[in-house]
Amino acid sequence: MRISVAQLNYHIGNFEGNTQKMLDAIEKAREGKADVICFGELATCGYPPRDFLEFEDFIQKSDEALNVLKEASTDIGIIVGAPSRNPVPEGKDLFNSAYFFYQGKQIHIQHKALLPTYDIFDEYRYFEPAKKFSTVLFKGKRIALTVCEDIWDVDQENPLYTLNPLDEMKEEGIDVIINLSASPFNYNHADARKEVIKKNVLKYKAPMFYINHVGAQTEVIFDGGSVVASPDGLIFDELPYFKTDQRHYELSDVIEGKQRSEQSMSKIQKIHDGLVLGIKDYFGKLGFKKAILGLSGGIDSAVTAVLATRALGKEGVRVLLMPSQFSSDHSVNDAKELAENLGIQYDIIAIKDIYESYLKELQPIFRDLPFNVTEENIQARIRGMLNMALSNKFGNIVLNTSNKSEMAVGYGTLYGDLCGGISVIGDVYKMEVYALAKYMNKDGIVIPENTINKPPSAELRPNQKDSDSLPDYEILDQILHHYIEERKGPKEIIQLGYEEKLVRRILRLVNINEFKRYQTAPVLRISPKAFGMGRRMPIVGKYLS
Amino acid sequence: MRISVAQLNYHIGNFEGNTQKMLDAIEKAREGKADVICFGELATCGYPPRDFLEFEDFIQKSDEALNVLKEASTDIGIIVGAPSRNPVPEGKDLFNSAYFFYQGKQIHIQHKALLPTYDIFDEYRYFEPAKKFSTVLFKGKRIALTVCEDIWDVDQENPLYTLNPLDEMKEEGIDVIINLSASPFNYNHADARKEVIKKNVLKYKAPMFYINHVGAQTEVIFDGGSVVASPDGLIFDELPYFKTDQRHYELSDVIEGKQRSEQSMSKIQKIHDGLVLGIKDYFGKLGFKKAILGLSGGIDSAVTAVLATRALGKEGVRVLLMPSQFSSDHSVNDAKELAENLGIQYDIIAIKDIYESYLKELQPIFRDLPFNVTEENIQARIRGMLNMALSNKFGNIVLNTSNKSEMAVGYGTLYGDLCGGISVIGDVYKMEVYALAKYMNKDGIVIPENTINKPPSAELRPNQKDSDSLPDYEILDQILHHYIEERKGPKEIIQLGYEEKLVRRILRLVNINEFKRYQTAPVLRISPKAFGMGRRMPIVGKYLS
Repeated sequence: MRISVAQLNYHIGNFEGNTQKMLDAIEKAREGKADVICFGELATCGYPPRDFLEFEDFIQKSDEALNVLKEASTDIGIIVGAPSRNPVPEGKDLFNSAYFFYQGKQIHIQHKALLPTYDIFDEYRYFEPAKKFSTVLFKGKRIALTVCEDIWDVDQENPLYTLNPLDEMKEEGIDVIINLSASPFNYNHADARKEVIKKNVLKYKAPMFYINHVGAQTEVIFDGGSVVASPDGLIFDELPYFKTDQRHYELSDVIEGKQRSEQSMSKIQKIHDGLVLGIKDYFGKLGFKKAILGLSGGIDSAVTAVLATRALGKEGVRVLLMPSQFSSDHSVNDAKELAENLGIQYDIIAIKDIYESYLKELQPIFRDLPFNVTEENIQARIRGMLNMALSNKFGNIVLNTSNKSEMAVGYGTLYGDLCGGISVIGDVYKMEVYALAKYMNKDGIVIPENTINKPPSAELRPNQKDSDSLPDYEILDQILHHYIEERKGPKEIIQLGYEEKLVRRILRLVNINEFKRYQTAPVLRISPKAFGMGRRMPIVGKYLS
Repeated sequence: MRISVAQLNYHIGNFEGNTQKMLDAIEKAREGKADVICFGELATCGYPPRDFLEFEDFIQKSDEALNVLKEASTDIGIIVGAPSRNPVPEGKDLFNSAYFFYQGKQIHIQHKALLPTYDIFDEYRYFEPAKKFSTVLFKGKRIALTVCEDIWDVDQENPLYTLNPLDEMKEEGIDVIINLSASPFNYNHADARKEVIKKNVLKYKAPMFYINHVGAQTEVIFDGGSVVASPDGLIFDELPYFKTDQRHYELSDVIEGKQRSEQSMSKIQKIHDGLVLGIKDYFGKLGFKKAILGLSGGIDSAVTAVLATRALGKEGVRVLLMPSQFSSDHSVNDAKELAENLGIQYDIIAIKDIYESYLKELQPIFRDLPFNVTEENIQARIRGMLNMALSNKFGNIVLNTSNKSEMAVGYGTLYGDLCGGISVIGDVYKMEVYALAKYMNKDGIVIPENTINKPPSAELRPNQKDSDSLPDYEILDQILHHYIEERKGPKEIIQLGYEEKLVRRILRLVNINEFKRYQTAPVLRISPKAFGMGRRMPIVGKYLS
């Protein structure tokens, strides 16, 4: 039997587009003499469709797409993920299902049992878990269909679930396991995924074809990396990260095994490539071509500009340099140098006159109150507004350039530097931003050395430095990681040896700034715990504030 | 037996504050000779605690609060909701539980079985459903403890669930049902709640004490309205809406029944009182005293200003009048008149000079491109910035004044009039805003008649009217309601008799403006489907866009 694995970039709710991509892949599979082709989880509608699933009309559109695929299955098996209806009134209205079409008919359906409802996942919001499990016989082989999370409780170590779908099927005898996934990227996830797949093939003594999505849906990035694993526990093949691809395999070769073909990619390269794909798909799926961002001469906007240029091309990025009276000379020069290195369009608008027009109108109200964060924010907001003005006039999308460290502690101005349609590096800690900059410069200087080496500053008052109000980023990032990614409490973090006063101050800053993050753009997710839909915190909460 | 019902206003994560409120109520119950006192669901930590529940330290703090309550139970029974730990590794780490303390000991615990995971609810994200059910004998009475949703599947008509906790307990014999709730307000909910309670008491032939939260937690408002119902199906008593209260009842009186004491409150009054409480608690729980908002002379900002003044007092509100060259004379006069009627501080800042300073700086880039939405947005954003400048300088919170109709179709400027810490009327359709204005004027003119009667306009270009770009609000609101609240698709809405082109245009506007709502302040929720945490839509989705 010959199996074709299609690692495709779906688009949520774009039924025509998704169906056409699948039809093209079916044609390729046919040319490759495949007996069966496999797509991803919820492939008709894209993942995550979120509350669109509550619209009967949306489910009908998915059903129509399934019909097209069913009709295309004349001489080839098609395995595809899509929502299906729960026929009984009890329980949720839908299942998250794997359909098997052949010879124009549906020959099998298996629903998903393990429904992730944590972090960015809300599956139990929509889906009823499967209670029945069975394999399907196709061309003499017993195929076990599973959907994503269904293979993740392989050793019953996962405390979230109480059953294991493959255990329920194994009495029928399993010749091949097929898993349709929509498994979002984070920099740890590909390794975790391969570990789980290895455990499964060893436990069930059967090969596994694991088909993932690739591409980004707003903040959620899918890295691809679909896996074919042999019963000997070796990864027979791994499809590329961050790229659409399709490959066909002889099942007998995979069963024989003895081939190891795993990719290795550094954490920083994964983050880099993931963010480039995230930007590219955010623009592509919304039908926009060009990004605009403010270039300050600092490292955050520099790294964002490089990522954007790699995603959209140099014609796809323009930047604004917006010096104030507090900007250092080198800021404009560093920004210009970067823009020239990248070959992107740049304009310079000094914000001093606009700033002074605000101060003049506010003077009757502010009188002689001293300069404080208000005036700093006015500058940041003028820059945000100028970016937005160009965005409106020319149909561009503003990129938010805030990093995760400053988003965490609220070191940013709402409606100012926190503007933007998508936050590019809002899940990247400052120390990782430096690592990205170095990675970008590995084949020659793109980001000026001075941008990397100078002390970070918002330049919103004379001689300001980030270190005036924040601890060193090395320490800050560690404490934030313990709190955000590891969900340690203050006592646990202090026990690790950090200064108590500092820990309490940082945790308080994280919590009292929830209101800013609530109103910030979606954040491209590259870590196991990004700000946004996967981290849901009360704004008026008193805990640690 | 004498039962005390404590309808309290909890604060998420404010363990000390919540515990102190409960201790005060216990003292009052003691004075009232009560045998047992009942609090709400997750009363130690407040509802919804969201991802704080993932922090071991947070659960420990809740446990410490429970210990204080347990020790206070020397001579009085205390029934209180709080998270408890799941002792086995399988399944989620926590239960959502009702504890029963007496004589310094925990005499019973019952976990919640029906975990709402829809709209604003994420309970399956955190909690394992109960699988065991039992009653507790207290002073000769069999008490069935239930938590919120547990009583909502009374006639097994609710398609979400497959079991009914009270059915599991009824073999033990039920003398009293106690339900600890955190049941969020919407303008339909009190009636639905009373219907469900009536069905339960009739079915189980036992009285029910239903204890709700009151108060707002960011966007989620709890209306109180705790209910005591008799086995004859009558509402024996109902605690007030939107107010903290505590009352004691002789169980024998409640069992005897024959007393009907239900509140009636109009939809508009509920919305009005709910929003006032929502503003009050947002400020109170964050420790802020004063709101600022822009007063345009239009109805949305007028209604918001009245609500804010009723919530925070006239010392708690200041307004900015920010006319541009496109503002009509009556706008400033209407706004002034309202501010004077309310007795709130107002300042006038003309935005023309700031606007022109932007145009001047943008001229080298914009050249002779025509005036368009860009220049409209600049005006709206200047106003947003001026509000934010005062907010920063004086420590106020900006109120967002956008209504639900315009939030739905994206008729608003991101970082402009969409600014604000909390959206006051973002769940109130335009026609309901008019109804609110009339309700506010029922005992004398507060909002100038002209503000109510003039055609709505953003006044961002000469002679602009909302009706230039939007259909009549009567039609618009109906179509939006079909789509948002009722989740009807385009075909279903068109079948109701609306013009196809209009329906498709409006649904498209709703979907392509998801990115604006993503970055808007939390919206005080008064309807069954508000924008925000209860409505989760993909930004890059192609469906209906």
